[in-house]
Amino acid sequence: MINLITYERLLNFTIAAFRAIGCPEEDALTAATALLSADLRGIDSHGVARLIGYVRLKEAGRANPRPDIRIIHETPSTAVVDGDSGLGLVVAPFAMKIAIEKAEKVGTGWVSVHNSNHFGIAGYHALKAVERDMIGIAMTNASALVAPTFSLERMLGTNPICVAIPAGEEPPFVADLATTTAANGKLEILQRKKEAAPLGWVQDKDGHPSTDAHALKSGGALLPLGGDRDHGSHKGYALGAVVDIFSAVLSGANYGPWVPPFPAYVPMPTGMPGKGIGHFFGAMRVDAFRPAEDFKLHMDKWINRFRSAAPIPGQPRVLIPGDPEREMEAERRASGIPVHEDVVTDLANLAAKLGIPPLFENF
Amino acid sequence: MINLITYERLLNFTIAAFRAIGCPEEDALTAATALLSADLRGIDSHGVARLIGYVRLKEAGRANPRPDIRIIHETPSTAVVDGDSGLGLVVAPFAMKIAIEKAEKVGTGWVSVHNSNHFGIAGYHALKAVERDMIGIAMTNASALVAPTFSLERMLGTNPICVAIPAGEEPPFVADLATTTAANGKLEILQRKKEAAPLGWVQDKDGHPSTDAHALKSGGALLPLGGDRDHGSHKGYALGAVVDIFSAVLSGANYGPWVPPFPAYVPMPTGMPGKGIGHFFGAMRVDAFRPAEDFKLHMDKWINRFRSAAPIPGQPRVLIPGDPEREMEAERRASGIPVHEDVVTDLANLAAKLGIPPLFENF
Repeated sequence: MINLITYERLLNFTIAAFRAIGCPEEDALTAATALLSADLRGIDSHGVARLIGYVRLKEAGRANPRPDIRIIHETPSTAVVDGDSGLGLVVAPFAMKIAIEKAEKVGTGWVSVHNSNHFGIAGYHALKAVERDMIGIAMTNASALVAPTFSLERMLGTNPICVAIPAGEEPPFVADLATTTAANGKLEILQRKKEAAPLGWVQDKDGHPSTDAHALKSGGALLPLGGDRDHGSHKGYALGAVVDIFSAVLSGANYGPWVPPFPAYVPMPTGMPGKGIGHFFGAMRVDAFRPAEDFKLHMDKWINRFRSAAPIPGQPRVLIPGDPEREMEAERRASGIPVHEDVVTDLANLAAKLGIPPLFENF
Repeated sequence: MINLITYERLLNFTIAAFRAIGCPEEDALTAATALLSADLRGIDSHGVARLIGYVRLKEAGRANPRPDIRIIHETPSTAVVDGDSGLGLVVAPFAMKIAIEKAEKVGTGWVSVHNSNHFGIAGYHALKAVERDMIGIAMTNASALVAPTFSLERMLGTNPICVAIPAGEEPPFVADLATTTAANGKLEILQRKKEAAPLGWVQDKDGHPSTDAHALKSGGALLPLGGDRDHGSHKGYALGAVVDIFSAVLSGANYGPWVPPFPAYVPMPTGMPGKGIGHFFGAMRVDAFRPAEDFKLHMDKWINRFRSAAPIPGQPRVLIPGDPEREMEAERRASGIPVHEDVVTDLANLAAKLGIPPLFENF
């Protein structure tokens, strides 16, 4: 059963939960807004369904609700931020703001972050730059679920990259992608439906191609974008590696197989070389390259030309990156956000534990 | 038949060819070095085999051997460069140098280029930053051979991205990848061998998946990295689109289906919205984030950990991006560069036409 709930109600509930674990009021609003942007944009695996996971990180002493987030090194166009183990949902907006401020002054700003936690969806952070006529870039590493080409071992996270680009009359271009063939959330959907995964998504514990949607639970791994060597998996591996290095080797966070897991019950890796997980943010003022009006005019032309490309007969129209998420957000702001029955139960238990008003009255 | 020739001899021949079409001495050396870096690194499709293509661009009035390359707009961390229709092999090193100079001053430098031509391999340009303890980024758009997800039309080039990252004791990490499942050069190899292409590389003129290595000659298209929607082709499409926008919409070059073709005999697109083809370069000083020695220490640790990941039984070891090309370069610098018989004939004809000493005495 799916329950529809208004965005406002879900937001108030989520703010109350973050307040209850000790976040200051402003941080609770920041974190809730970042988290629920995933539900609005249709990336349900990264939204309110993870709220209980963030609470558990706090309970395990791995997330600090009152962090002293600060710049520890900077140049006119760069900074490294220490997140002080704060929620990534709070640390990331802080870091993105610095990138934007630096771009205002010198054209671009680039911020690498250590000692953070999961930041929700990359798109939310990158879009902050678009509001200021800037190109926004956001990426993060994550705990190792992905086997590089030829590897039996899981070495990388799904390491997403988002690039958000402003346009004029048209809505922004938003490429927001995990560097794997398919994100873990897509496997979870197949698991619920008891369906097989396409070849190229996962390998089994022996490194063989597999269609088992549960392969990760028995020692398997997600595959990099491309799936296998013949189809360019070395490219997906390389992209995921770049995200890892920009996010963590530049900043002093953990990288590769040492990135801490999101579930608080999973043991931490041993011999960790850095602090927390890492992110990387960029902001580029479009008028640092050409007048913003010219840029927007040509982005509109770019978007219109691609949108009007002849589609393959029987296939949908050609989409602009960001179209599906934007359409979903419009629909969900109007009609409400669907919350899966399992998540409703989780949130009812969470409300009881935290002593906050429940989301649904019948619980 | 394959002919082995020393790098020095091939370099002198290539310099003579660029001199003969009117390039100043310094530019001829710059262009020849950039072009032959492809042969050294084993990307034979982009090296001396294309020399005659560059000469034809000059003959067709599309490449200017004596360009006035200049900055037309800049901020402390950005610039737009007008390549004045110069060879990309000369324009790109000019632009990368500006990115590096800006990074020296403010931490990072970002340069978008219009009115250029093909620049050889992205890796050559990105590696220029690594020599200065910087991360180097290079990308370029190219004429449309790639159909976005659901598209019948070719809308994007193979639009490569290179990210080159310095290490300490270890050689640099160099991810250099076309944003397609397979580059066009790989199809050419299959054509010569009369072999079929794996599904996911190309579609036919009706947009159906195809194994025909000649599909592009009959109205087909290359496919974005991922191959089809189920395997993430929308991600490869989005990455290729980002390269197009950074290279051309930021700079004022042509984009999408309007990018001029490399072969001089192919007619130019109509209604072109910009000038020439576009590139984008970035340089980030690693010590703009953390002390260079710390960064290098952790890059070495990153590289060693990935290199020692347990491989899948029966598969090669896990590679670090850049390993195969570096090993190839060492081999070819020592033993010589193999030049295919067809290319030998082309170069003999070229030498006769340009009035320069032939590469092989028996021609």
